[in-house]
Amino acid sequence: PTSKLPDVGTSIFTVMSALANEHNAINLSQGFPDFNCPEPLMHLVTKYMQEGFNQYAPMAGMPQLRHKISLKTEKMYGYRPDQDTEITVTSGATEALNAAITAVVKPGDEVVVLEPCYDSYAPAIRLCGGSPIYVPLALPDFSVDWDQVKRRLSPRTRMIIINTPHNPTGAVMSKQDMNTLANLLDGSDILVLSDEVYEHMVFDGQQHYSALQHPQLRQRSFVVSSFGKTYHTTGWKVGYTIAPPQLTTELRKMHQFITFCTATPFQLAIADFMEQESHYLELPGFYQAKRDFFVKQLQETRFEVIPSAGTYFQLAKYSGISNDYDLDFARRLTTETGVAAIPVSAFYHDKTDNKYLRFCFAKSEDTLRAAGEKLAKV
Amino acid sequence: PTSKLPDVGTSIFTVMSALANEHNAINLSQGFPDFNCPEPLMHLVTKYMQEGFNQYAPMAGMPQLRHKISLKTEKMYGYRPDQDTEITVTSGATEALNAAITAVVKPGDEVVVLEPCYDSYAPAIRLCGGSPIYVPLALPDFSVDWDQVKRRLSPRTRMIIINTPHNPTGAVMSKQDMNTLANLLDGSDILVLSDEVYEHMVFDGQQHYSALQHPQLRQRSFVVSSFGKTYHTTGWKVGYTIAPPQLTTELRKMHQFITFCTATPFQLAIADFMEQESHYLELPGFYQAKRDFFVKQLQETRFEVIPSAGTYFQLAKYSGISNDYDLDFARRLTTETGVAAIPVSAFYHDKTDNKYLRFCFAKSEDTLRAAGEKLAKV
Ligand SMILES: CSCCC(=O)C(=O)O
Ligand SMILES: CSCCC(=O)C(=O)O
Repeated sequence: PTSKLPDVGTSIFTVMSALANEHNAINLSQGFPDFNCPEPLMHLVTKYMQEGFNQYAPMAGMPQLRHKISLKTEKMYGYRPDQDTEITVTSGATEALNAAITAVVKPGDEVVVLEPCYDSYAPAIRLCGGSPIYVPLALPDFSVDWDQVKRRLSPRTRMIIINTPHNPTGAVMSKQDMNTLANLLDGSDILVLSDEVYEHMVFDGQQHYSALQHPQLRQRSFVVSSFGKTYHTTGWKVGYTIAPPQLTTELRKMHQFITFCTATPFQLAIADFMEQESHYLELPGFYQAKRDFFVKQLQETRFEVIPSAGTYFQLAKYSGISNDYDLDFARRLTTETGVAAIPVSAFYHDKTDNKYLRFCFAKSEDTLRAAGEKLAKV
Repeated sequence: PTSKLPDVGTSIFTVMSALANEHNAINLSQGFPDFNCPEPLMHLVTKYMQEGFNQYAPMAGMPQLRHKISLKTEKMYGYRPDQDTEITVTSGATEALNAAITAVVKPGDEVVVLEPCYDSYAPAIRLCGGSPIYVPLALPDFSVDWDQVKRRLSPRTRMIIINTPHNPTGAVMSKQDMNTLANLLDGSDILVLSDEVYEHMVFDGQQHYSALQHPQLRQRSFVVSSFGKTYHTTGWKVGYTIAPPQLTTELRKMHQFITFCTATPFQLAIADFMEQESHYLELPGFYQAKRDFFVKQLQETRFEVIPSAGTYFQLAKYSGISNDYDLDFARRLTTETGVAAIPVSAFYHDKTDNKYLRFCFAKSEDTLRAAGEKLAKV
């Protein structure tokens, strides 16, 4: 019998991180910080382990954590989700995305996916017997072409997946975008999966606009968030989803058979640490400074900087340097120059190559400076 | 649109643990220890967090952990799986089971499931468009009726799921069982999913016989294990699967889009702690003493003890006490007597009620004694 996903190979994040390690390159490919999470957060994990909180959490997540999520959501987005019926803690945002898709997509369904996009969306849709309907984001600023989205809707459309702030481009959706989407879906029963894991990384005074802030949208949306991104703990695998009760019911049916629950001591530690609101309030400034520092480095190189309004990623165009396919260029940059980045073709189903590389700037200034010096030699 | 799993409700483990908490009952329902994991194991987690190991692990698992798994497997089962191509670390055994099923079951496929069984198998099969083919274990000892299994095989059979030591019954498969299964499958391309998460809990001098010990079986098997069970850390969600390279390739395609990876500091801590072989070598004696202690308590009650050869579960028959449906009886036992157990009907697709309750004895002697005293009053 043949593979259920014959054309899926090892993900680009694994490939590039492995290549970076092998060649001792500076790894700006896979998205994760090279600095540690806050000390008090780790101390809380130790405390809860010592107190014996090492057994299964409740399937929906620790009540303490869901309570804090509820309060924070109200503060940030003016909507207070019910912790018992609308919030589910998952094993990272990846599991949340998988569970949301698996919960609702049936054979024959269509799901609109805006490209470039994270590589887990389409395989999850296909495993359900659904079809991804790809709509490219509009160059040069990677904005959503809502007219084109509208043209691709059909009676079989089950869901549309949006992602803001956007990985890999750093584009941010506006309130106007969300209004347009809400109008587009008005009268249909099309659902929304809103991947907002970089919600706390929006720069230059702009505000993240969440699907939760829009009364019509939130009624049809799974909104996915990630503590890994916000607390520098991508390796702890704690994320969550907010969705109306009837969607949460279906999501939890999946979650209870996918992982059942998520690491208990991490959940409790994060619940306590969420009281330090300064941590996430300062995050935009923290990451904007890194972006600005890295952009300054890039400006000393032959790469062209594409403005990044959010996330911890920075696109750069290398068409002034080389005409090579971006995966080949990224490999050579890793092995010869010593800097690993992600070729953006990996985020397109047909591997469209627009000569972009994605650099992760969630790194110390030393790392970013060293990378800049190497890139200046290209 | 209707639910993809319309008849799935909240799992019995959630229901009974919640009821136990609500009524302050002694919770012998959901399977987890009421004692803490080893101190040195927690210290290792703290050490690795402090050292900054809080970011994504490689998708297949930390190499250090896969190395230790490989060595341990060779020591225990005489077969050394290759860490690069045959071992995958997952977010608990639940994710491993889900990923293995999702990796290979296609619409129209049949999967043989021996009942009673863990409640996640069938929903995962159905979500893939497959059909569970239920074969009951033979009463009174819950042995496998291989003739009946044989009769239920068909050209559409894709896989058979086995579980030894067996949850909820405590039955253990013999080498003879494994030989019979291997002969049955000889010449077919039917796969095996062998759920062996209680591998270190086999009593009375018996040995666990793993599918990995059988050269013909292991070539067609996913073998699933759980650190949560072995190290008293069910809330850390670290498990793993051993499978031949071509099956591991398919399993990892799923894993990389289901959770991508599993908590890094736990993986590293467990890898180090695995050197304390005494921990798992002493586990059969540790749990046998608890079983014996609990059985002695039960013998002072009107419950009938069904012999348990493995796992940390003990079945008891209550037909001498009541004729009620087991879920009703379990609820009343929780709310009125103050002891929570799992009604075994929850492990049958058609909720067959044989008047059995499952008690978890992974508890301190004080807990087991207190439970026994309450049960004696029934
Ligand atoms: C789970 S590995 C991928 C991490 C990530 O979100 C990214 O680099 O885009
Ligand atoms: C994941 S909750 C169920 C725990 C368990 O394995 C059991 O109680 O059977």
